[in-house]
Amino acid sequence: FSAILSNDTHLGNDDAIKYNNVLTNLGNGYDKWCGHFVVPTKGLYVFSCTVMATNANTITLGIIKNGQSVLPVSSANTPWESSTRVVVLAMDKGDRVWVRRLAHDRNIQGHYNSFSGYLISTET
Amino acid sequence: FSAILSNDTHLGNDDAIKYNNVLTNLGNGYDKWCGHFVVPTKGLYVFSCTVMATNANTITLGIIKNGQSVLPVSSANTPWESSTRVVVLAMDKGDRVWVRRLAHDRNIQGHYNSFSGYLISTET
Amino acid sequence: FSAILSNDTHLGNDDAIKYNNVLTNLGNGYDKWCGHFVVPTKGLYVFSCTVMATNANTITLGIIKNGQSVLPVSSANTPWESSTRVVVLAMDKGDRVWVRRLAHDRNIQGHYNSFSGYLISTET
Repeated sequence: FSAILSNDTHLGNDDAIKYNNVLTNLGNGYDKWCGHFVVPTKGLYVFSCTVMATNANTITLGIIKNGQSVLPVSSANTPWESSTRVVVLAMDKGDRVWVRRLAHDRNIQGHYNSFSGYLISTET
Repeated sequence: FSAILSNDTHLGNDDAIKYNNVLTNLGNGYDKWCGHFVVPTKGLYVFSCTVMATNANTITLGIIKNGQSVLPVSSANTPWESSTRVVVLAMDKGDRVWVRRLAHDRNIQGHYNSFSGYLISTET
Repeated sequence: FSAILSNDTHLGNDDAIKYNNVLTNLGNGYDKWCGHFVVPTKGLYVFSCTVMATNANTITLGIIKNGQSVLPVSSANTPWESSTRVVVLAMDKGDRVWVRRLAHDRNIQGHYNSFSGYLISTET
């Protein structure tokens, strides 16, 4: 799947980011209403997240698996600065992955914030 | 496929970026002379683009599918700042993806600008 | 595979970065003690590397294949600025890929430095 945020968004403390513009969603694992990806098939998945804050602020998001932060994604306090992270994770059917704010600012841009994931192997 | 720009390049308004150093090109979908990737097999593809401007300028490129911008990729006005985006797209045979300038500066560095794509599923 | 650095690390001239927190390692190709990925099966692989320096310095790493730099990855001199690169490479069984410092600063942050790779096709 691949989903993009359409509008600038203010983030609460614990909410998953609800990337609302869903470009692809084979298997329907991604739910744009809650922002979670629920694994339809056990396997190795690649997840990727890009972040950009509004107004040149620093913001740190996290890629979260079943409630635990796997790795942080931070954008620096420079206009037009975005950052991307990529991670390969072994997932069981029903495991969940989402993105949420971890620290710093609370506002992110539309269009430049996206979240993707895809199956690369049914073996783990 | 994966292709890198060898030299600093000045971009016109609408031209696809012609990443000329082709590292891989299974299926020969990428054409370095026009910068387009023409889908050889219907399926889900991952595309990735990294951008860096010259002289610490801001530049915004776009990943383009069949003439429409799918998402922007911007580099900030800081020396050595590059940005990367990743997207999963459903593609039909013959669809085209390329990268072109959308806004801001017109000059990009060699080596730090690259464009990659690969098939992850023949289902969409 | 996917591996993250746990602690801030000072880099020597030629050493591979030893990403020590191994999240996934299907096929056991990644060796955290030497930092090398040794290809277990011939095919097309995607490699991805994210870099962040400590103390807002600039640092340039390289993704290295069998001793030759394939492409550079640089982090800019801005706090919280990280950069990522993605490349698709055709690999023979036994080929090696790792990441090492190429230029500029010598200190990298933990958590924000990661290295991933995965097989996408057994054809090349």
